[in-house]
Amino acid sequence: MNTESKAVVLLSGGLDSTTTLAIAKSQGYELYCISFNYGQRHAFELNAAKRVATAFGIRSHLIINIDLSCIGHSALTSDIDIPKNRTSQEIESEIPVTYVPARNTIFLSYALAWAEVLDASHIFIGVNAVDYSGYPDCRPEYIEAFERMANLATKSCVEQKLHIKIQTPLIHLTKAQIIRKGIELDVDYNLTHSCYDPLPSGVACGICDSCFLRKKGFFEAGLVDPIQYAK
Amino acid sequence: MNTESKAVVLLSGGLDSTTTLAIAKSQGYELYCISFNYGQRHAFELNAAKRVATAFGIRSHLIINIDLSCIGHSALTSDIDIPKNRTSQEIESEIPVTYVPARNTIFLSYALAWAEVLDASHIFIGVNAVDYSGYPDCRPEYIEAFERMANLATKSCVEQKLHIKIQTPLIHLTKAQIIRKGIELDVDYNLTHSCYDPLPSGVACGICDSCFLRKKGFFEAGLVDPIQYAK
Repeated sequence: MNTESKAVVLLSGGLDSTTTLAIAKSQGYELYCISFNYGQRHAFELNAAKRVATAFGIRSHLIINIDLSCIGHSALTSDIDIPKNRTSQEIESEIPVTYVPARNTIFLSYALAWAEVLDASHIFIGVNAVDYSGYPDCRPEYIEAFERMANLATKSCVEQKLHIKIQTPLIHLTKAQIIRKGIELDVDYNLTHSCYDPLPSGVACGICDSCFLRKKGFFEAGLVDPIQYAK
Repeated sequence: MNTESKAVVLLSGGLDSTTTLAIAKSQGYELYCISFNYGQRHAFELNAAKRVATAFGIRSHLIINIDLSCIGHSALTSDIDIPKNRTSQEIESEIPVTYVPARNTIFLSYALAWAEVLDASHIFIGVNAVDYSGYPDCRPEYIEAFERMANLATKSCVEQKLHIKIQTPLIHLTKAQIIRKGIELDVDYNLTHSCYDPLPSGVACGICDSCFLRKKGFFEAGLVDPIQYAK
């Protein structure tokens, strides 16, 4: 097995990262998934990541406990209210309170460390710069800058045994295109979880930004979302 | 207080990071220190960080628990033997087993997240490209690439409220110059801990690469190291 054929995939258990995993699998990589227990408000996301990893029969699934709540400042990790019932225009107008400071940078840094240990050249992340929530660390220029830094950061890269490539197969796709791609690759979206603020039962609220974008994606793709919504 | 006057300082409790903190203090910044409990073999380092932070009367000291040992692959976080009794030439000949994959990238990512929450423009890190152990993530080209990435990664940077500057005041200094600078700034090096493999009492072994470089630094500076060594 050469370094070219191993990939570390960031897996949140949501629609985007699950589709990214399916794409990496279809390209023939040996798959290693990494997820983060980062003081999210709920564990449904992490349980979805475990279900998805099992369904894909991946080689290894690393779940890293990290405490972003001690840094604070996001509705996903502290007591700020999750915005509800917003329109596309409202969602796109500003970076929302669900933004977690430097989250993708922290996640990609751990993925980089694991990639070096595994001798894996590829890191897949399901960021998206089209139907997204305006997060700065989802943009192509950010990903390129991270990749450049990564190739100066590690022993394997400096000794030229490894060239790290950050793969972002969803970056220029709409949510509808992502969903169509996933269906083409037989993704079971019933395994995934996207909602920022689910009911105690785990059912998606249907009205947070993440639910809104997911529902809109399925609608525009002309497909039925298999998960349940409260609203 | 504007964003220009706040600084996040990475503090390990060792000689370099403590001198870096003293330099940041002498430049008049409001100081916020961040340390990491990353599955090191011993807690002496973290206790030194706490002593130093207290001695400097800093504004806030954040200690983040992160588990790098689950990623493995370093003598500092797993069961690989720490190299002993090596010469300068041996230390400089290769990147040693004490290298922790992507460590500075992970540490700087957390510092970036906290800097954004604090509205702090400056992140100080005591990396050194002269009397160092050959770690790739201590080189100027790495630091520049991280800074460039950081300014594309965060909401505050994208909204142009903040420009992050990674400050590396030690990067071109020899260990002897670092120590002279610290003494000039009244650093009490007795508070610091550098050894990779201390005795159960906390006394430095005197023969690991870190002890070797520290002793050599004090010798070349013509000064006496106030800490005790086993050998």
